Amino acid sequence: MIVRPKPGVLALFFVMRGSVVPRILPHILGFAAYAAIIVGVVHITRLDMSGFSIAPFGLLGVALSIYMGFRNNAAYDRWWEARKLWGQLVYEIRNLARATNGLIEDPAERRALLMESLAFCHFLRGQLRKVDVVAEAGKFIGEEAHAVARALNGPDELVRRMGRRAAELRRNAAIDAIGYRIIDERLATIAAVQAGCERIKGTPLPFAYTLLLQRTAYIFCLLLPIGLVSSAGWSTPLFTALVAYTFFGLDALSEELEEPFGMEANDLALDAICRVCEISIFEALGEKAPPPLAPERYFYS
Amino acid sequence: MIVRPKPGVLALFFVMRGSVVPRILPHILGFAAYAAIIVGVVHITRLDMSGFSIAPFGLLGVALSIYMGFRNNAAYDRWWEARKLWGQLVYEIRNLARATNGLIEDPAERRALLMESLAFCHFLRGQLRKVDVVAEAGKFIGEEAHAVARALNGPDELVRRMGRRAAELRRNAAIDAIGYRIIDERLATIAAVQAGCERIKGTPLPFAYTLLLQRTAYIFCLLLPIGLVSSAGWSTPLFTALVAYTFFGLDALSEELEEPFGMEANDLALDAICRVCEISIFEALGEKAPPPLAPERYFYS
Amino acid sequence: MIVRPKPGVLALFFVMRGSVVPRILPHILGFAAYAAIIVGVVHITRLDMSGFSIAPFGLLGVALSIYMGFRNNAAYDRWWEARKLWGQLVYEIRNLARATNGLIEDPAERRALLMESLAFCHFLRGQLRKVDVVAEAGKFIGEEAHAVARALNGPDELVRRMGRRAAELRRNAAIDAIGYRIIDERLATIAAVQAGCERIKGTPLPFAYTLLLQRTAYIFCLLLPIGLVSSAGWSTPLFTALVAYTFFGLDALSEELEEPFGMEANDLALDAICRVCEISIFEALGEKAPPPLAPERYFYS
Amino acid sequence: MIVRPKPGVLALFFVMRGSVVPRILPHILGFAAYAAIIVGVVHITRLDMSGFSIAPFGLLGVALSIYMGFRNNAAYDRWWEARKLWGQLVYEIRNLARATNGLIEDPAERRALLMESLAFCHFLRGQLRKVDVVAEAGKFIGEEAHAVARALNGPDELVRRMGRRAAELRRNAAIDAIGYRIIDERLATIAAVQAGCERIKGTPLPFAYTLLLQRTAYIFCLLLPIGLVSSAGWSTPLFTALVAYTFFGLDALSEELEEPFGMEANDLALDAICRVCEISIFEALGEKAPPPLAPERYFYS
Amino acid sequence: MIVRPKPGVLALFFVMRGSVVPRILPHILGFAAYAAIIVGVVHITRLDMSGFSIAPFGLLGVALSIYMGFRNNAAYDRWWEARKLWGQLVYEIRNLARATNGLIEDPAERRALLMESLAFCHFLRGQLRKVDVVAEAGKFIGEEAHAVARALNGPDELVRRMGRRAAELRRNAAIDAIGYRIIDERLATIAAVQAGCERIKGTPLPFAYTLLLQRTAYIFCLLLPIGLVSSAGWSTPLFTALVAYTFFGLDALSEELEEPFGMEANDLALDAICRVCEISIFEALGEKAPPPLAPERYFYS
Repeated sequence: MIVRPKPGVLALFFVMRGSVVPRILPHILGFAAYAAIIVGVVHITRLDMSGFSIAPFGLLGVALSIYMGFRNNAAYDRWWEARKLWGQLVYEIRNLARATNGLIEDPAERRALLMESLAFCHFLRGQLRKVDVVAEAGKFIGEEAHAVARALNGPDELVRRMGRRAAELRRNAAIDAIGYRIIDERLATIAAVQAGCERIKGTPLPFAYTLLLQRTAYIFCLLLPIGLVSSAGWSTPLFTALVAYTFFGLDALSEELEEPFGMEANDLALDAICRVCEISIFEALGEKAPPPLAPERYFYS
Repeated sequence: MIVRPKPGVLALFFVMRGSVVPRILPHILGFAAYAAIIVGVVHITRLDMSGFSIAPFGLLGVALSIYMGFRNNAAYDRWWEARKLWGQLVYEIRNLARATNGLIEDPAERRALLMESLAFCHFLRGQLRKVDVVAEAGKFIGEEAHAVARALNGPDELVRRMGRRAAELRRNAAIDAIGYRIIDERLATIAAVQAGCERIKGTPLPFAYTLLLQRTAYIFCLLLPIGLVSSAGWSTPLFTALVAYTFFGLDALSEELEEPFGMEANDLALDAICRVCEISIFEALGEKAPPPLAPERYFYS
Repeated sequence: MIVRPKPGVLALFFVMRGSVVPRILPHILGFAAYAAIIVGVVHITRLDMSGFSIAPFGLLGVALSIYMGFRNNAAYDRWWEARKLWGQLVYEIRNLARATNGLIEDPAERRALLMESLAFCHFLRGQLRKVDVVAEAGKFIGEEAHAVARALNGPDELVRRMGRRAAELRRNAAIDAIGYRIIDERLATIAAVQAGCERIKGTPLPFAYTLLLQRTAYIFCLLLPIGLVSSAGWSTPLFTALVAYTFFGLDALSEELEEPFGMEANDLALDAICRVCEISIFEALGEKAPPPLAPERYFYS
Repeated sequence: MIVRPKPGVLALFFVMRGSVVPRILPHILGFAAYAAIIVGVVHITRLDMSGFSIAPFGLLGVALSIYMGFRNNAAYDRWWEARKLWGQLVYEIRNLARATNGLIEDPAERRALLMESLAFCHFLRGQLRKVDVVAEAGKFIGEEAHAVARALNGPDELVRRMGRRAAELRRNAAIDAIGYRIIDERLATIAAVQAGCERIKGTPLPFAYTLLLQRTAYIFCLLLPIGLVSSAGWSTPLFTALVAYTFFGLDALSEELEEPFGMEANDLALDAICRVCEISIFEALGEKAPPPLAPERYFYS
Repeated sequence: MIVRPKPGVLALFFVMRGSVVPRILPHILGFAAYAAIIVGVVHITRLDMSGFSIAPFGLLGVALSIYMGFRNNAAYDRWWEARKLWGQLVYEIRNLARATNGLIEDPAERRALLMESLAFCHFLRGQLRKVDVVAEAGKFIGEEAHAVARALNGPDELVRRMGRRAAELRRNAAIDAIGYRIIDERLATIAAVQAGCERIKGTPLPFAYTLLLQRTAYIFCLLLPIGLVSSAGWSTPLFTALVAYTFFGLDALSEELEEPFGMEANDLALDAICRVCEISIFEALGEKAPPPLAPERYFYS
C-alpha cells in the first residue's frame, strides 16, 4: 500500500511507484505504433477512409466505459471489504485482550491465548499471500507453529486451539458460562473474518467479465485508428495511445485491486496490520511492544 | 467457477471455457449477416440512405447501456450475495464445531450433530441445484439421509433435527441454558443462510426487465445497420457484430450470474465449498480430512 | 411474480404476461401517431426544419437516462428489500418452530404459538395487500382471527399475543429467563419485518421524482419528432416510438416495482411465501404439510 | 410526504403540490428570457455565431449529469436512511411494549415507561423540526415535559429517565438481570436511532458539492444559448428552459431530500409516524387508541 | 464542516469559505492562459487545425467523467462512514452513561469510567488529527492523561483502562456477569469505532487511482484547446477553463473528503461531536454541562 503526499504537477507524470503505467506501457506503445502504421499506410496508399467515422465508437465507448466502471467498482469493493475485514480483526484482537483481562485469572493462560491470536493473524496472512509464516508465528507460539502448519487450514486450526483452551478453562470452572460466551463470540467473529478473506481470495470476479471487457477493449483500440484517421490524421496515434492508457490503465488497476491480498504496490499492508495487532496485545499484557512498521519509500508491505 | 491466471494477449481471443461467446455466437453472426444483406441491398438498389443517420442511436445506446449496466449490477449482486451466504455457512459450520467442543461432553453426540451439519450443506446444495444428494449426505448421516429426503424441505428438516438434538441435550442437562443459546444462535444463522439461498434461487430478477432490455437490444441491433450504412458502408457488419457482442455478451453474462447456483462455468463452486466444510469438521474431530477439491481445467464445480 | 424459462427469439416479442407493453402501448402508439403528423405537416408545408437538430436532445437524453436509471435503481432496491424482509420472516418462523421445540414443554402451548405466527404471516399479507384474510388466518387461530381483525393493526396485535403467551409461560416458570429472551428476540425480529414492510408500503418514492421525470420524458418525446424530422424523415415515428418505449417502459416498470406488495405480474409472491412458512411449521410439528403453491401460467400470486 | 395515485397525462402537468416547479420557476423563466435576449441580439446584429457549437456542451453536460446524479443519490440515501431510522423507532417502541408485558409486573411502572417512550418520539420530532412539543409530550408525561424540555438534549434526557426507571426496577428486584438486559438493549437501539437522526440533521452534504454543482449549472445555462443560437435559432429559449428545468429541478429536489426532517411537501411524515407509535402503545396497554392521522390533500405532515 | 443556509444567486459566485476554488484557481487560470496561447499561435500562424476535432474528446470525456464520479463516490463514502462512526461513538457514550447508572452502584467508580470515555473521545480526535490533546483530556482524567499519551496507541490504552476498571468491579462482585457483559459490549463497540477510524485514516484510496485520474485529466485539458480551436475559436479558453474547473474541482473535493478527519472546511466537526458527548455525560451525571460549540462564520471545527 502506498501512502504519500499528493505529488506536484511535474512529479505527477514521473511517479512510477504505485502507478500501473509500467505494466501497461507495452499496450500503450503497441497501440500507438499500430495506429502510426495505419496512418502511414492510409497516407501512402491514399485510401479514402471517409466512410469510417468516429461516430460508432462513441456508442461503443460509452457502453465500454460504463461496464469498465462497473468492474472497477466491484474490484474496489472487494479491496475495501478486505480492508474492513482486517480492521475488524484488529479490534477483535483488542477485544479479546481486554475481555480476557476480566475473565481469565491465570496470566499464563491469558497470555497463551493472546499469543495464539497473534499467530492467527500471521497464519491468515500466510494463507492469503501463500508465504511461509512458521518462523514469524513461532515467535508467539514457539514449536507449536510447526504443528499448526501441518493442518490443511492453519488459521482454522488456531481458532480451534483457542476454542479448546476456552473450553478447558470452562471445564475447570476458571470461567463461567457468560465468560465462555463472551470469548466464544470473539472467536466466532475471528472465524468470520477468516472466512470472509478466504471468500475474497478464492472467488475472483467472474472470469467472463474479464474476457468480455478485455476483448471489447482490444477490438475497440484496434479499430479506433481506422475510425480516427480520416478526421484526426497524424494525431491518431496520440489519441489511440490516450484511449488505450485510460482503458487498460483502469483494467490493470481493477485487476490489482481485485486480489487485495497480494504484495503489489496497491495491495493491502497486511504486515503493517499484523504489527498493529502485536502492539495492542503487548501493551495490553504490559510488555514492551514492537515499534510500528515504517514504510519503505511510501510503501507499506 | 473459473479460477485461472490472466491469459496472454493472443490466448485472450481463443479462450472459450468460461466465455459467453459460444452461447451468443449465433446472435453475433446472425446480426452480421443481416447487416451484410442490408448493405448489399442498399448497394444494389442504390437507395439513398443519407436520411438515416447514427445520431438517434447515440440517444438510445446511452439509455440501453445504462439500463443493461443496472441489470448487470443487480445480477452480480445476487451472485456475490449467494457467495457471501455460502461463506457464512462455512464459518457457522466451523463455529458449531468449535463451540460444541466446549459445550457437549459426549463425543458421539457432538460428532452426530456435526455430521448433520455436513449433511445440511449437501442437502442445501442439492436443493439449489436440483440434484440428488442422498448418496453424498449418506456418507455423514447414513440411512437417515433417505428420511430427510422425504421431507418437503430437506435442509430445513436437518436444521430441525439439529435443533431437536440440542433440545434433547438440554433436557438431559448435558448443556446449560447459555450453551443451548449458543447452539441455537448458530442454527438460527444456518437457517438464515438457507432462507437467503432460497430467496435468490426462487426470486429471479423481475421478468419485465429481461423482456424490456432484450427487446430494446434486438430492435436496436436490427435498426443499427440501416443507420450505419450511409456512413460506415461495408464496415457496417463489423460494427453491428461488435455492438451485438457487447450487448448480448453482457446480457448472457447477467443471465448466468443471476442464477448463481447452477453448474455453468461462472456459477458458484458449491462442491468445493462443501468440501471446505468437510475439511474443517474432520480436522476439528481429529479425524482424517479429505483433500481439497482440485479444479478440472481451471473449473471448480 | 413471473418465473419462466428464457423465451426464444420469436417468443420474446410476443410474450405479454409480465410485460409492461400492454400498459404503455397507448403512449407508444400516441407518440408514433403524433410524430407521423409532424412529419406529414412538415412534408406538406415544406417547412425548413434544418434549424432543429438532434444535438440538444443528446444532452437532455443523457441526463434523463441517468435520472431514470436512478429511480429504477431505487424502485428495485425497495422491491428487493421487501423480498428480503419476507425471506427473513421465513427463517424467523422456522427459528421459532425450532427454538420452541427445546424451550416449551407443553405441545399445545407450542402449537398455539406457532399457529399465531402463521396467522401473523397472513395478516401481514392482508395489511400490505389490503385484502381480507380473516378466513385464511382462521384456519390457524380459529375464531380469534375476528378479534385480531378488530385491532387497528392486526399483525402488531398478533405479535403482542405471542408476546403475552411467552410472558405467561415465564410467569408459570414453564420457560426460564434465557428461554424467554430467545423467544423475545425472535418476536423482535418479526416486529422489525412488519415495520420494514409498513415502511415500504407507506412511504412511496418522493412524489416530486415521478413528476420531474415524467414531465421531462413527456416534453422530450413531444419535441423529439421536431428535432428528428429534418434528418430522419419518415423514420421519425419509428424512432420516437422506440424512445417512448424505452423511457415509458422503464417508467412503468419502476412504478410496478416501487410497490412490491401488490398483485401485479412483477410483484412479490406473498401467497407462495406464506405457504412456505406453513410447510415449515407443519413439518416441524410432525403434521401433514400442505403442498407448495403451483404457478398459474408461470405466475405466482 | 405526498401519497397519491398516479396523475393522468393532463393532470401531470398541472399538479403543483409536491412539485418543485414553483420553487424553480424564476430560474426557468429567467434563463428562457435571457436566451430570448441572446437570440434577439444575434438576430439584430447579425453576428456570426457559427464558431460556437453545441459540441463542447455535450462534454460538460455528461459530467454535470453524472455529478448531479451522484448528489441526488446521496440526498435520497439520507432521506431513506432517515425513514429507516423512524421505522426502527416504531418497532423498538412496539418491542418495548411487548417485552415489558412479560418483564414488569407493576402495570403503573410499565405504563409510565411506555408513556416516556411516546414522549421520546415527540421530543425527537421537536428536536429535528425545531418545534415546541411540550404540549404534545405533556399528554403522556404531564408536567415532567417541562423538566425534560429544560435539558440541553431533551430526547437524550428521556432515554436516561427510562434507563433510570429500569435501573430502579432492578434495584428493587422487580426485574432480573436478563430482563434488565432486554430493556437496556431496547433503549440502546432507541439511542442509536436518535444519534442517527442527529447525524443526518447536523451534517449536511459537504457544502462544496452544492457550490460546485450549482456554479457549474449556472455557467452551463448561461453559455448554452450562445452555443445553441446558431443551430437552434428561435427554439433556443425553449431548450434552455428545458435544460434549466431538468438541472435545477433535480437540484431543488436534492436539496429538499437532503434535509428529510423539515415540513416541506417531500419531507418525512413524522407526525404520522408518532401517531403509529401511539396506536401500538395504547393497543398494547388495552386502552383506546387514537385514529391514524388522515392526509390533507394527499399530504401527511 | 460548513453549515449555512443556501446562498442567493449572486452570493453563490462569491462564496469562498468551503469552496474548492481557491485551491484550484491556479489550474483554471493556467489552462485558460495556455488555451489562449494555443488560439493565438493558431491565429498568427494560420495553421489549419480542422484535422483536430472535438469528437475524440467526447469519448475520453465520458470515460473520465464516469471514473471521476466513481472516485468521488468512494471518497464521499469514506467521509460519510467516518461521520457514522463518530455518530456511533456518541450513542455508545450515552449508552455507557445510561447502562452504568443501573449497573455500578458506586458513583465515584461510575464517574471515573465515564470521564475515561470522554478522554477516549479526545484522544481519538488527537490520534486522527495528529494534534496534542493531553490538556483537553486532562480536564477529565487529570494527570493520567500524560500516562495515556505515553502509550503507542492512546485511545486503545483508554479502552483497556475502562476494561480493567470493569474487570475490577466484577472481581469485587460490584457488578454481576450480565452487567460485565453489557459494559464489555459497549467497550467492544467503542473499540470497533476506533479501528474503523484508524482504517479510514490509515488506508487512503489506492494511490494508482489518483495518478490515473489526474494524469488523464491533465492530458485531456492540455489537448482540449487543440481540439476546440478550429470550432470554438476565441471561446476556447473559456471552455477549457470551465472543463478544468469541473474536473479539478471535483478532484480537489474528492481529495478533501477522502481524508475526513483533517481540519479543512469540508472535514468533519470532531470538536463539536466531542462536545456533544461531554454534554450527554455531564447531564447524565447531573452536573453542569458545557454549552454546545458555536460555529465560527458557518464553520464547525
